[in-house]
Amino acid sequence: MSEIKSLIEKIQKFNHDRDWEQFHNPKDLAIALNIETSELLELFLWKRGDDVDIEKIKEELADIFTFALNFAGKFDLDVVTIIEEKMEKNAKKYPVEKAKGTSKKYDEL
Amino acid sequence: MSEIKSLIEKIQKFNHDRDWEQFHNPKDLAIALNIETSELLELFLWKRGDDVDIEKIKEELADIFTFALNFAGKFDLDVVTIIEEKMEKNAKKYPVEKAKGTSKKYDEL
Amino acid sequence: MSEIKSLIEKIQKFNHDRDWEQFHNPKDLAIALNIETSELLELFLWKRGDDVDIEKIKEELADIFTFALNFAGKFDLDVVTIIEEKMEKNAKKYPVEKAKGTSKKYDEL
Amino acid sequence: MSEIKSLIEKIQKFNHDRDWEQFHNPKDLAIALNIETSELLELFLWKRGDDVDIEKIKEELADIFTFALNFAGKFDLDVVTIIEEKMEKNAKKYPVEKAKGTSKKYDEL
Repeated sequence: MSEIKSLIEKIQKFNHDRDWEQFHNPKDLAIALNIETSELLELFLWKRGDDVDIEKIKEELADIFTFALNFAGKFDLDVVTIIEEKMEKNAKKYPVEKAKGTSKKYDEL
Repeated sequence: MSEIKSLIEKIQKFNHDRDWEQFHNPKDLAIALNIETSELLELFLWKRGDDVDIEKIKEELADIFTFALNFAGKFDLDVVTIIEEKMEKNAKKYPVEKAKGTSKKYDEL
Repeated sequence: MSEIKSLIEKIQKFNHDRDWEQFHNPKDLAIALNIETSELLELFLWKRGDDVDIEKIKEELADIFTFALNFAGKFDLDVVTIIEEKMEKNAKKYPVEKAKGTSKKYDEL
Repeated sequence: MSEIKSLIEKIQKFNHDRDWEQFHNPKDLAIALNIETSELLELFLWKRGDDVDIEKIKEELADIFTFALNFAGKFDLDVVTIIEEKMEKNAKKYPVEKAKGTSKKYDEL
C-alpha cells in the first residue's frame, strides 16, 4: 500500500477505536485544521523566526498533517493526485519567466 | 524514493525554479499555511457542510499539503516519523477507555 | 474622549508599562489577532454551538478586541469611520433586494 | 447611547434588512472572524511589514470589528466591560516587574 494511504488508515483506526467519527464532519475537521495551523504559527509569534523549538514544531506539524490526511480520507481523495493537479494549475498561474524572484500574487504579475 | 519525499522534492523544485526560497522562511510558511486553512474553512462558512464544492475542496486541501510539505522540507523532518510519534503521544493522552465516544480535551477527561 | 479612543489609550498604557511596543509590529499583531480568533473558534469545535462556556467566550472576545484596537492604534485609524466606510461599501456589494435571505458572496449574487 | 452600542445597532440593522440573522449563529460568526483575520494577515505575507496597503488594512480591520461587534451583540456582551475585566486579569498574569521587556507567555515568566 502507498505510504500516504497507510498513514490515512492508521489515523482512521485511531479515530475508529475511540468512536470519534461522529465528531469528524468536514466542517469541524476544517476548523480543527485551522486551529492547529494557529498553534504552529504561535511558535513564531513576536519572534524573528530563528529561535524555534523544533520539538514543538514537530508536534504541531504532525497535528496539521493528521487532520489534513483525515480530511482527505473523508472525501476519499488521492493526496498525490490533488497536489500534482494543483501544481500544474499553479505552474500556469505562475509561469517561471513572470514569477521568478517575486512574491506577487498571480493577479498582480 | 518514498512517496512523500518525492512530493517534497517536486515542491522544492517548483519553488527553486521561481527563486522563491528567499521568501519561504519558516514564519511566513506558517502564515501561509494558516491562510490556506482559512480558505478551506471558508468553503463551509454559513453552511451545514453537505453542499460542498468538491473541486474547490481539492484545491484548498492541496495548497495546505503543499505548504505543510514545504515546511517539513525546510526542517528536514520525516513526515511519517513525526506523525507516528504524535500518534503514540496522543494514544497516551487519549486512552481508548477514557476517550471513547467523547470529544473532550485530554485535560478534561 | 470617545469610548473607543479611551480603550485604545488604556491598552497602549498597559503595553507601554511593560515595554511591549518593541514586539508589537503590525505583522505580529495580525498574527496575534489570528491566534486569538482561533482560540475563540476552538470553543465551538466538535460542538453544535449551543453548549458554550460564556465566561471563556468573554475572555477570548476581549482578547480579539484588545489586539484589534491595539492594531487600529498603531495606524492611528478611527474605528467608527473605517467601520462605517466598510458598511457603505458592503451596502453596495450586497444591495437588500439581491442579498436578502441568501448567504452567497457578492460575486455570486 | 454609547459609541459601541450604536455601532452594534447599525450592524444589526444592516443584517436584519438582509434577513441574515438566520446564518449568524455563534459558531459561524467565530469562523467568519477567523477568516477575516487571515485576510488581514495575508496583507503581510512574504513581507517585512513596511510596505503595507493602508486602504486594504482599513477594510480588513473593519471586517474584523464588524464581526466581533456582531458576535458581542449576539451574546449581549458589554464590550468595554469584557475588555476591562480581561485587562485586570492580564495585569495579574503579567505583572510589570516580571513582564517588562519580554515577550514570554505568563507560564514561562
